[in-house]
Amino acid sequence: MPRTVEWVGGAVRIIDQTALPVELKYVDLVSPEEVAEAIRTLKVRGAPAIGVTAALGVALAARDCADTAVSDKALAAIRLLGETRPTAVNLSWALERMRRALELSVGEGAGSVRQRLLREALDIAEEDKRLCERIGVNGERLLKDGDTVLTHCNAGALATAGSGTALAVVYAAVRGGKRIRVIADETRPLLQGARLTAWELVARGIEVTVICDSAAAWMMKQGRVNCVLVGADRVAANGDAANKIGSYSLAVAAGEHGVPFYVACPYSSIDLSLRDGTCIPIELRGEEELASFFGRRTVPQGARIENPAFDVVPNRLVSAIITEKGVLAPPYDGRLA
Amino acid sequence: MPRTVEWVGGAVRIIDQTALPVELKYVDLVSPEEVAEAIRTLKVRGAPAIGVTAALGVALAARDCADTAVSDKALAAIRLLGETRPTAVNLSWALERMRRALELSVGEGAGSVRQRLLREALDIAEEDKRLCERIGVNGERLLKDGDTVLTHCNAGALATAGSGTALAVVYAAVRGGKRIRVIADETRPLLQGARLTAWELVARGIEVTVICDSAAAWMMKQGRVNCVLVGADRVAANGDAANKIGSYSLAVAAGEHGVPFYVACPYSSIDLSLRDGTCIPIELRGEEELASFFGRRTVPQGARIENPAFDVVPNRLVSAIITEKGVLAPPYDGRLA
Repeated sequence: MPRTVEWVGGAVRIIDQTALPVELKYVDLVSPEEVAEAIRTLKVRGAPAIGVTAALGVALAARDCADTAVSDKALAAIRLLGETRPTAVNLSWALERMRRALELSVGEGAGSVRQRLLREALDIAEEDKRLCERIGVNGERLLKDGDTVLTHCNAGALATAGSGTALAVVYAAVRGGKRIRVIADETRPLLQGARLTAWELVARGIEVTVICDSAAAWMMKQGRVNCVLVGADRVAANGDAANKIGSYSLAVAAGEHGVPFYVACPYSSIDLSLRDGTCIPIELRGEEELASFFGRRTVPQGARIENPAFDVVPNRLVSAIITEKGVLAPPYDGRLA
Repeated sequence: MPRTVEWVGGAVRIIDQTALPVELKYVDLVSPEEVAEAIRTLKVRGAPAIGVTAALGVALAARDCADTAVSDKALAAIRLLGETRPTAVNLSWALERMRRALELSVGEGAGSVRQRLLREALDIAEEDKRLCERIGVNGERLLKDGDTVLTHCNAGALATAGSGTALAVVYAAVRGGKRIRVIADETRPLLQGARLTAWELVARGIEVTVICDSAAAWMMKQGRVNCVLVGADRVAANGDAANKIGSYSLAVAAGEHGVPFYVACPYSSIDLSLRDGTCIPIELRGEEELASFFGRRTVPQGARIENPAFDVVPNRLVSAIITEKGVLAPPYDGRLA
């Protein structure tokens, strides 16, 4: 499968996810500014993938500068990249690792600092890959042969440096011989479900049906959904989980229909510093994401638009949290640590 | 305000709603085939507006034919138009009225039959206009000064020959001096909320905020919605209400948050011949409505697509049904008649 993000010849190579599913296009990012722009404009997205890309962006900053500027440039990149998107905690977690690596290199020569930063970023990518596999293995026990899994947004290979979080669970189940079907919410406004989740499932030969976000509850009502399985951008210490807008709506519907609602994420997405979901910052994105579509206006001038990119699923609606460390069922309070 | 559908110079003049909000474009339909095509392709949509347009289509069929063919042409048009869309009961209700008018004219001359059919169709339009007003007056008591109403799809002037159903309630409240804000779900796949509801609210100077469908539950969670107010395409005898896909999801969320969920529709949308919502035929529309957007592919080849146009809100989630005859609260069973 194509790699979502990797280090190639001194550049950060990403798939430009805004071009999918029409075109599989790679972009080489050659400066921290380009990396920041790619994250802000969702060319690369998904909490773990953002963390990996930002870490590589710091390595990039340290690479293309005078020897005396390495540390300053790396710190400036950490600041710049840290401000690109607020909700996913993996971003600040990965950048914090880069900052520590930089601190550990104090007194070393520029070449050594550069090497250490690049190694740290590549380690984060490599770890992400491995933990996706672990999430898959841990979670696949929750799926039965013949199950239909409903998912939202994209928590797959395109959201990580590996095989995904929520979709890694599906991939592991399929690898284990289970027949799994997926229903993918198209996920407005940017259609990550229709464009990205469907694309990577089709590429792997897994049956996927795309529906409007608003049809998900109706599918549950008809008994066509065995579980909901989504990723998370940040989970609070009590198990409240922030994820793509619409996750809360799905969780309410799942609760109403007795359908399990699972959250799959790396342990690094759990932010133990936050008591509960009310502390998670929710990114409000631009009006233009709803106001027009490929240049064609869909909302009249004069109407307001509100475009929260995420919402928070309260812990009581989360049936289990799947991480590389295992599967945790409620109550979560005090047990996520 | 522009008229959604009217009889002008021997043609059925409609607003081509697929061009909104970019352009306010009128189309003159000059044959029953053109009327059928306009209904099928949603140039005109909304249960009451479909009924009026189809009735005028029958009058049109009887107009442009040899005197000896009037009855046959009218009957053929009734058949053709009756097959355009399955869910809205107003369509078959209006066509049934045209059939009865035709039967009453047996033995009359061609000119008299034509006149009778046109009069019946214009009566249906005129009645629709009046009952929209009554729905507004009856429903506006449910809204308090300062309320925020969340609505889905378009149940406004563009869905009727008058001022709407759900939005007629808003208009009546505003006319009565109440400050009302509206949150409009954009309503995928065809964006009737973003394109049409926002357009007619802006035109009337009423504050409207467009959100993704999937953000509605999150708005309720934040206490920002005082009630949900939608139209209906068909209501069963027990109060189960079919409406645009996503209405069920909204009703579940409203129930979860203690937000009243109101359905506004003409009494003719109530189909007493159907015991409950399981008997209401749900239109499955084409994949292309989700597969691409203004010609740009959004779902990869190889993915399935499922596109139900409607869902059914069970009566236990409907806080009240507002018609021109009054406001009915549960239990509905046996009391809608």
